[in-house]
Amino acid sequence: MEVFERSFEESVISFKAMLQSNRMTRFRTEFLALHNYDQAKIFTEFASSERKKVYQYLAPNELADVFDAFESDILHLSEEYFLEMENAYAAIVLGEMYADNAVDILNNIDNKEKVNMYMHLMPNTSAREISRLINYIDETAGSIMTTEFVTVKEEYTVKQAYEHLKLAAAQAETIYYVYVIDEDSRLKGVISLRDLIVHDDQTLISEILNPRLITVEVNDDQVEVAKMVQDYDLLALPVVGFDRELLGIITVDDVLDVIQEEADSDYSGLAAVDVNEIHTTPIKASKSRLPWLVTLLFMGMGTATLISQFEGLISSVPVLSSFVTLITGTAGNAGTQSLAVAVRKLTNKSEDDQFFDSFGFELLTGVVTGIVVGITIALVAGIWKGNLFLGLIIGIAMACAIVVANLAGALIPKLMLKLGFDPAVASGPFISTLSDLTSVFIYFTIARMFLSYLS
Amino acid sequence: MEVFERSFEESVISFKAMLQSNRMTRFRTEFLALHNYDQAKIFTEFASSERKKVYQYLAPNELADVFDAFESDILHLSEEYFLEMENAYAAIVLGEMYADNAVDILNNIDNKEKVNMYMHLMPNTSAREISRLINYIDETAGSIMTTEFVTVKEEYTVKQAYEHLKLAAAQAETIYYVYVIDEDSRLKGVISLRDLIVHDDQTLISEILNPRLITVEVNDDQVEVAKMVQDYDLLALPVVGFDRELLGIITVDDVLDVIQEEADSDYSGLAAVDVNEIHTTPIKASKSRLPWLVTLLFMGMGTATLISQFEGLISSVPVLSSFVTLITGTAGNAGTQSLAVAVRKLTNKSEDDQFFDSFGFELLTGVVTGIVVGITIALVAGIWKGNLFLGLIIGIAMACAIVVANLAGALIPKLMLKLGFDPAVASGPFISTLSDLTSVFIYFTIARMFLSYLS
Repeated sequence: MEVFERSFEESVISFKAMLQSNRMTRFRTEFLALHNYDQAKIFTEFASSERKKVYQYLAPNELADVFDAFESDILHLSEEYFLEMENAYAAIVLGEMYADNAVDILNNIDNKEKVNMYMHLMPNTSAREISRLINYIDETAGSIMTTEFVTVKEEYTVKQAYEHLKLAAAQAETIYYVYVIDEDSRLKGVISLRDLIVHDDQTLISEILNPRLITVEVNDDQVEVAKMVQDYDLLALPVVGFDRELLGIITVDDVLDVIQEEADSDYSGLAAVDVNEIHTTPIKASKSRLPWLVTLLFMGMGTATLISQFEGLISSVPVLSSFVTLITGTAGNAGTQSLAVAVRKLTNKSEDDQFFDSFGFELLTGVVTGIVVGITIALVAGIWKGNLFLGLIIGIAMACAIVVANLAGALIPKLMLKLGFDPAVASGPFISTLSDLTSVFIYFTIARMFLSYLS
Repeated sequence: MEVFERSFEESVISFKAMLQSNRMTRFRTEFLALHNYDQAKIFTEFASSERKKVYQYLAPNELADVFDAFESDILHLSEEYFLEMENAYAAIVLGEMYADNAVDILNNIDNKEKVNMYMHLMPNTSAREISRLINYIDETAGSIMTTEFVTVKEEYTVKQAYEHLKLAAAQAETIYYVYVIDEDSRLKGVISLRDLIVHDDQTLISEILNPRLITVEVNDDQVEVAKMVQDYDLLALPVVGFDRELLGIITVDDVLDVIQEEADSDYSGLAAVDVNEIHTTPIKASKSRLPWLVTLLFMGMGTATLISQFEGLISSVPVLSSFVTLITGTAGNAGTQSLAVAVRKLTNKSEDDQFFDSFGFELLTGVVTGIVVGITIALVAGIWKGNLFLGLIIGIAMACAIVVANLAGALIPKLMLKLGFDPAVASGPFISTLSDLTSVFIYFTIARMFLSYLS
């Protein structure tokens, strides 16, 4: 995999050197020769003083390309960068960027007066496109679409369409689909550039346009959008308003980011931690982890309180205490498994199933796994402690605890969705802490029932 | 989001009806009007008897388009379908498919004699492409690339290249990049269709080709490939052999699937369950979950045995037992958090950091979180039980347990990677079961040290 002739670190060092020794020409030649993504990665390595020079060395449109390549994980840095630019310069950079990316950056700038100033200082056309995009709700189709697309009219010939495309090519974010609209800019159909190429010049667009459109509406969830692009192998997907007017398109590169984001947030949810807490300090990391830990700690206090209710039982049959963590742990694991399956079903929207379908499914799965694990531990414990009744009790408790944990893991995400939360934030630690409580209760209650056989 | 005029279920029913009443023409018109992905989804709903009719109604190339749209999650069904076709028909269908997809299907057919028969029965050109692809190692660039791409020579003019593209358009999987190769088919550069369009006909390819290529090698991990396409916003990525000869290209639609696959397997790993166990029976689900559960159960027996060593201590100070699950649970949660962060760092390859960087990082994070949580529980427990020494012991034990769990969570994935395993299979349940052992040991050892102050 060869991108840099020199290693990344070497490139950064040499570019820093050029900036410090004011070698503008050399910097421009070498920096502009790089791919925008590499330019972006290197730019973030510069110190403020070095960046200030970059703002002098690069034209706004050149810097715009760099910021167009900013991925979501470094986007938060852009606020600092823009605030340190001259307002006019910053505004033109934003104006030169693709509208959807400019919006992402403006959404990262908290100082809204600045944002307004930029909007006033940039060319009207750009300002208009940006303000059209900036109002869409986060994580909807509208928030990730771009307004730079190519449209033609039905009455065009292939040749006309092709010529039109040539002119538009410089501006548009993708030219591989051409959208056919009527006079009210309602979407009539789509033609891929591939179609244009294979048909001969005089063919009418109306003859070859594909009217079976796959579209999304501007307020559809970005996850649904991603799924459509993925399922239908599209390079771009048109976004329409309430009466099918074409508002924008979503290109596959933005979909890649959505899928990554969603995967990260699901994964983070399951572990009760933000996995993108990368390149931070231990203090920051702790700050992001502690809220969950402490919340769960207090939930765990419930279990502690419950156990202390059974202290009498424990001191009369101390052997019981050996198996507490085994039962809570195993039930927690089972709960985490069914939680993960449930969350994935929900977030993949790959389910038309009823609430009680999956209830039944998880109940049965819980029973089967519970019985197998229960019998196993019953034998192991019974033989180990030479007390088959003890084994029986532990086995039954284990089985029940697993069934309950399975149901909790499967139903809590659905419950959260019904309550309007993201089911993915129902985390494994949350489920296992919860099932600690139920497991302990089940275990000691059953143990007390059979007390006479134990001591 | 409008794809079907009728609901999916309605479409399935009406298509089944057409097949049962042998209405071939109607079936062909309506079925072929659908997007290939929808055709694939509907096809999987048919019963064997209905599918057999489809094989008569559809030409091999028509059915090939349907199978080209099979996503990885339904790929395993294809074996049954092909085995129920006439061999000759099946072979032609495979021959008509894109080579990379045909390979995916052949890899799903266990009966290797059948595979060989298909290879013999299909057109030589297809057979040659397929056998070239079929040998690449799973999850490498080679395994997801296609050999259907468009190449031109440096000396071509834009017009010639464009004409050449027109002819190739029907076959190639993407025409949006044209690759420039020398007589030894070594890769010299790339031109996007966009470049072809904006330059005028007489320009020489050699003048406009982009020599700064982003390529992968045929044995690179598919995750690296996905990251490149994502970072550089590519629609396709060339795959080269050891002396830079162009072997194939990877298109963005395959990359979308890779990202999804990887996300699923990371998520599955963290929960110790296969989250794609969708649409199966509770028995199958249990079968896939039990191995982990039982393994972890036996790991948990270690903790049980350890606790039983301290039975004497517990019966003399029964209050200790109340806090066992609280300490093991909390430490397990902390461990899961650091595990998730570590795994994500590793799988995202977003780390140039040394083993001991992250060791130090997680040690400090563990200490900070440990101290905060430790103090909290010390106060809560001390006040609750009216015994500050008890609180102190529990606080110290908690802090130590968290530090150890954090380190385990952070280092075990790295260790697995060093040992050549996928770090993502180091699951949350595994870490929490492991940290149960260490936490219990720490807790009771400290408790025993301070025994005199307790009773």
